[in-house]
Amino acid sequence: MPEKVLIYSRFPKAMMVRIGQRYDLMDAAGQPPSEKFTLDQLAAVRAMITAGGTPLGVAMMDQMPALQAIVCYGTGYDGVDLAAAASRKIAVGNSPGANSSSVADLAMTLMLAVTRRLLPADAYVRSGSWSSAKPSPLMKPQPGNPGRRIGVYGMGAIGRKIAARAAAFDMDVAYYSRSRHDVPWRYVSTLEALVDWCSVLMIAVRAGADTHHAIDAEMLRKLGPDGYVVNISRGSVIDQQALIAALADNTIAGAALDVYEKEPHAPDALTAFPNVVLTPHIGGHTVESHLAMQDCVIANLDAFFAGKPLPYPVS
Amino acid sequence: MPEKVLIYSRFPKAMMVRIGQRYDLMDAAGQPPSEKFTLDQLAAVRAMITAGGTPLGVAMMDQMPALQAIVCYGTGYDGVDLAAAASRKIAVGNSPGANSSSVADLAMTLMLAVTRRLLPADAYVRSGSWSSAKPSPLMKPQPGNPGRRIGVYGMGAIGRKIAARAAAFDMDVAYYSRSRHDVPWRYVSTLEALVDWCSVLMIAVRAGADTHHAIDAEMLRKLGPDGYVVNISRGSVIDQQALIAALADNTIAGAALDVYEKEPHAPDALTAFPNVVLTPHIGGHTVESHLAMQDCVIANLDAFFAGKPLPYPVS
Repeated sequence: MPEKVLIYSRFPKAMMVRIGQRYDLMDAAGQPPSEKFTLDQLAAVRAMITAGGTPLGVAMMDQMPALQAIVCYGTGYDGVDLAAAASRKIAVGNSPGANSSSVADLAMTLMLAVTRRLLPADAYVRSGSWSSAKPSPLMKPQPGNPGRRIGVYGMGAIGRKIAARAAAFDMDVAYYSRSRHDVPWRYVSTLEALVDWCSVLMIAVRAGADTHHAIDAEMLRKLGPDGYVVNISRGSVIDQQALIAALADNTIAGAALDVYEKEPHAPDALTAFPNVVLTPHIGGHTVESHLAMQDCVIANLDAFFAGKPLPYPVS
Repeated sequence: MPEKVLIYSRFPKAMMVRIGQRYDLMDAAGQPPSEKFTLDQLAAVRAMITAGGTPLGVAMMDQMPALQAIVCYGTGYDGVDLAAAASRKIAVGNSPGANSSSVADLAMTLMLAVTRRLLPADAYVRSGSWSSAKPSPLMKPQPGNPGRRIGVYGMGAIGRKIAARAAAFDMDVAYYSRSRHDVPWRYVSTLEALVDWCSVLMIAVRAGADTHHAIDAEMLRKLGPDGYVVNISRGSVIDQQALIAALADNTIAGAALDVYEKEPHAPDALTAFPNVVLTPHIGGHTVESHLAMQDCVIANLDAFFAGKPLPYPVS
């Protein structure tokens, strides 16, 4: 008899095929588990899989008194109430670094696309405006990458890969992080100074209470009218209303986002801008990245059910 | 009295402002010069500016018996009948390397966007399909960059910059060129073998009679159903009808094009595909690249009118 594992967030079915070959999955598909399963069923659950960004607090844990393992699919775990889990002796695991190339590559894709106006350019060709020589204010030449100042906020596995890729484009790379790292990039000791200095701000910081709305209206003013912000971390790091206002009055030049304050939802005020690129939280969404994340999830679950410590614990 | 210079191709006015401060520009704006100017006016023209891809042959040269300098704005000069120019002792100049970073960066932008399905992803968010959880076959996870085989066709200034950038994405880089270069990438001795090997084909070769339709139906079959082709060189290098057929029957996975067989014109059959990214020949279209190209054009014109050899001659 395979062990039962609750799936808490909504995941595409294809992502769970390999895990489903080893475990008996109870898929709540992003709905309140108590609506899909009986209290007795939930009371028996010892392990669950969640997307790290999905809120998972005391109320949910209280419905599952036997819960001993929360396994996050992905690197993030900001939705999990770690204190509540610790007090219940629930182990929390994630998939560290498994998707860092995939996320860093999407960050670069977004940066290049928004600064080069790729979407308006493609639309200009497809609409026939190019062949009919229609003028297009959006097609004005933009500054290029060599010498452009890119500020990386956060220097974990993803931030390092972003920095290395940006350097290959001859960009001038600096970073801010709580502490200095052993990396060849310039360290800036405050986020304000980084934002003041750079013209592309890359948000690659781990989300948490201390980073909530770290990029607010004042920071966006510092970024300035030639500045772009790219976010592949978590929507909570940017004050989204302030971002929309900054885009509306040209306080900044543009934005490229893979994450939003409320997912899956990008407000209409955001989707109306031509100078933004918006992707549906697909940072870790490559074939290899999913396989690597599934490897971590399976390793965490296998160890847990064998009575061993999680090989990929959240520290 | 500033010297008169004919502008032969259609250029945005902003691109000619600096040159117009030094020379008296006769702007044919891409139309036959004889329709805009009298035969006497044309007979007096000693120098002209053209986009290298615009056809410029014997008939045009015959209308300008005093012509002694053809100055290409950009690196290309494939439209210029070099033999006819040589026989008339007309010097031909270009802007070598001035836009190589800009073009290489667009090549990477196109490659990342098409392989990561950036346009369908943005459309998925903007249309509201994401928030309403609509299934989207286009949003299936795609292979990522690490280990992906990228074949660079042509190893000039642009090819080298593409290779260096691709290596920073942990891609496996190889190239084909008429001769081996002193570069750290694997050399493949035939174009067929390169196309067979790679899953992303980057066309960065200088266009000419020998590269015309080098990528034909057979090559696209070799590229295969997981393969992408990116072209930032010249439209003539790809058999565009064969490409459209290969996209229509999934012989290849996708294409990203900045250049077309007939510009400014991307056929409807091409613009209808969701798995292509199309830009309006903006490879060299950044602020710094235009300044650098204008510097070359001005240096070539200044030298010519001072009776000196062109500093940036086409060799």
